[in-house]
Amino acid sequence: MKKIKGLKGQICFSSDRKTIIVMENAYLLYRDNEILGVFKTIPPEYAGAQIRDCGNHVIIPGLADLHTHAPQYGYRGLGMDLELLDWLNQRAFPEEARFSVREYAENAYRIFARDMKNSATTRLCIFATRHADATVCLMDMMEETGLKSMVGKVNMDRNAPDYLRESSVLSAVNETKDWLDRSVGKYRNVQPVLTPRFTPSCTDDLMEQIGKLREQYDLPVQSHLSENRDEIAWVKKLCPWSKFYGETYDRYGLFGKKKANTVMAHCVYSGEEEQKLMKKNGVFIAHCPESNTNIASGIAPIRKYLEDGQKIGLGSDMAGGSAESIFRAMVLAIQVSKLRYCLVDKSLKPLTFEEAFYMGSMGGGEFFGKVGTFQSGYELDALVINDNALHGPYGYTLRERLERIVYLSERCTIAAKYAAGKEIIIK
Amino acid sequence: MKKIKGLKGQICFSSDRKTIIVMENAYLLYRDNEILGVFKTIPPEYAGAQIRDCGNHVIIPGLADLHTHAPQYGYRGLGMDLELLDWLNQRAFPEEARFSVREYAENAYRIFARDMKNSATTRLCIFATRHADATVCLMDMMEETGLKSMVGKVNMDRNAPDYLRESSVLSAVNETKDWLDRSVGKYRNVQPVLTPRFTPSCTDDLMEQIGKLREQYDLPVQSHLSENRDEIAWVKKLCPWSKFYGETYDRYGLFGKKKANTVMAHCVYSGEEEQKLMKKNGVFIAHCPESNTNIASGIAPIRKYLEDGQKIGLGSDMAGGSAESIFRAMVLAIQVSKLRYCLVDKSLKPLTFEEAFYMGSMGGGEFFGKVGTFQSGYELDALVINDNALHGPYGYTLRERLERIVYLSERCTIAAKYAAGKEIIIK
Repeated sequence: MKKIKGLKGQICFSSDRKTIIVMENAYLLYRDNEILGVFKTIPPEYAGAQIRDCGNHVIIPGLADLHTHAPQYGYRGLGMDLELLDWLNQRAFPEEARFSVREYAENAYRIFARDMKNSATTRLCIFATRHADATVCLMDMMEETGLKSMVGKVNMDRNAPDYLRESSVLSAVNETKDWLDRSVGKYRNVQPVLTPRFTPSCTDDLMEQIGKLREQYDLPVQSHLSENRDEIAWVKKLCPWSKFYGETYDRYGLFGKKKANTVMAHCVYSGEEEQKLMKKNGVFIAHCPESNTNIASGIAPIRKYLEDGQKIGLGSDMAGGSAESIFRAMVLAIQVSKLRYCLVDKSLKPLTFEEAFYMGSMGGGEFFGKVGTFQSGYELDALVINDNALHGPYGYTLRERLERIVYLSERCTIAAKYAAGKEIIIK
Repeated sequence: MKKIKGLKGQICFSSDRKTIIVMENAYLLYRDNEILGVFKTIPPEYAGAQIRDCGNHVIIPGLADLHTHAPQYGYRGLGMDLELLDWLNQRAFPEEARFSVREYAENAYRIFARDMKNSATTRLCIFATRHADATVCLMDMMEETGLKSMVGKVNMDRNAPDYLRESSVLSAVNETKDWLDRSVGKYRNVQPVLTPRFTPSCTDDLMEQIGKLREQYDLPVQSHLSENRDEIAWVKKLCPWSKFYGETYDRYGLFGKKKANTVMAHCVYSGEEEQKLMKKNGVFIAHCPESNTNIASGIAPIRKYLEDGQKIGLGSDMAGGSAESIFRAMVLAIQVSKLRYCLVDKSLKPLTFEEAFYMGSMGGGEFFGKVGTFQSGYELDALVINDNALHGPYGYTLRERLERIVYLSERCTIAAKYAAGKEIIIK
């Protein structure tokens, strides 16, 4: 039987979306990668546990980024004067085309993987590009970080420049199969996720084939949904048979329902029917407040989604978002919900700090299994945060320290980081 | 004649609100505290200038924070679930009351001054509390930082708890005079600014007396204006004689017009008449996008103000805002302008990067004189930025580096900082 280990410190975690448990000078005990629980004193049955004393540092779950684009990392913070469809054509597509060259991909992904390793994130859903080689390169590099990630070779056979799109359904499927042969079951920390870019980029024929691959390989799915009003109108035109955008995935078995999860980024303008289907099928929503703001998409009604019991986490959506930090996504989620409340719809109250923290940890973590909190049976993903730089003229409660860590994360440092029970050595 | 000095590096600065000048490997020359200009090569008349080579670092003007509350610094990032008037009663007033004890003020302001010194800000307009002693303590500490700041003892004789408000107009005026006697002309880097908290906190009698002090001492003024709809309705009730909020300052000579400037924070809901008076009187607007978001005030129509030729800069408004960084205020100014554009009013286009950078440097700098750009005759406020952590898979243009520095400022470090020609040694 494996040795029991533990972290001692100032422990905070969500127990549900409305509740953050705070325990001072407490013990987070785990065996292998599995959490046994958080205790005020070490229970007799765990006597002899090997404890790492984190002193006054704050220990929280690792954060989950449910939506990001690794090849866009190089130009985050640039070109923020465009809306979605122009932004794709002028920024995203030209940059992604460079990843046909393996050497370029290696250079770019090395930087991405290093920065993710050093971040507060322990779990990620990542879009690569359409290139199988470059996607495998990214998976190799993410494997080495020790973070747990899902990485997708992108599929796109229409409405993209010739230099980037897949030239036929057959070639798209062949390259996707090649990628799956090289990645399914090949990694300890990384797994492939099917990634039709979004409906405007994939013909119905291609969607159908991706659906078959999902059936065959039992894979998770990631894509985009109802981000922008022009995009929604375009999907309606491309798929006149669909009643709503979500159906264009659902028809081909790419919208939840299976054991391997589906996550859809954005859902800014999902209508009632789409919401119902997401709920019924257990589709996860990746809320990306910075991206939705930067490319002027709008503000998703997250309060409603949470109260309806939708599954929901946060995404950085780089480079629509500029910040890799899920702490910043938590803050922006609260901030934009306040603007939505005061400018759009007074019936949906702003998100609370508890809800934002939940989405960035436990809510997003659920996509990866029992991840994102410190309850018994969950996997040990943890951050040990040094918030010394935030000391003030009086003492803060632990709950207050947590809130300040989230709002002022750039002033804090990560003293230690664990993913699935393994320590990640950062910086 | 003083020695000519210079900084060599990658230089960026606004020449007006629509234009950022970028010059690679250029020389920023200055004598004493005054800029001579930026040059590709050193002109013969300045041969022998003593040059500091900043290599590949990016050199930009120091940033101006037109609105912040030093006593609230200790609880930034906390209590963000309240709107303005509740937030004042539950958070701001109880904390400010602690500053009646000099020792507490010293502890709190020492932290504030240290962090401002280490920030990207070189110029600040600061609210203290109503206490003369504590305000002088803050001025002493700000003086030592070498930053250029205006600091105000707050006036407030109504609608605040007994434990905090000034008990009579007479005692308020006496304490204000005491403070002015101890601070006018006493500092090299700090000067007093008259600070009626806002109209709901000041009786007409007190406003009248503050107006007289302005006349007598020729002082600048700072206050709040049209931040929140409930606040505006309250002002209307308190001053039924006023046609709009701005008149409640203007009537007593506290709304621009003089050589010593006036700055009003927020102006989220200023109507046409108020805007006209601001323009006519040369009142500065301190746009505080994070605070306006955090306490759910709304989004100010900054595009309109800029196009109308209003004078405008950015404010952190801690602790309504959590971040001291004017880089973050620039980003948020752009972001909220996009949400305003897509949710409220399509006739006002989002702010450009140029405009946000202008407001944070040259726009706000103007409040302090010839400050905030690198044109000849301006005071030398400069930041030397190390953006090595932002290197990517390809080279960026200098203009792109600047944009990434602003969006990703927390990944950069300040290698050197100057205010009014003097180097500030940070960290």
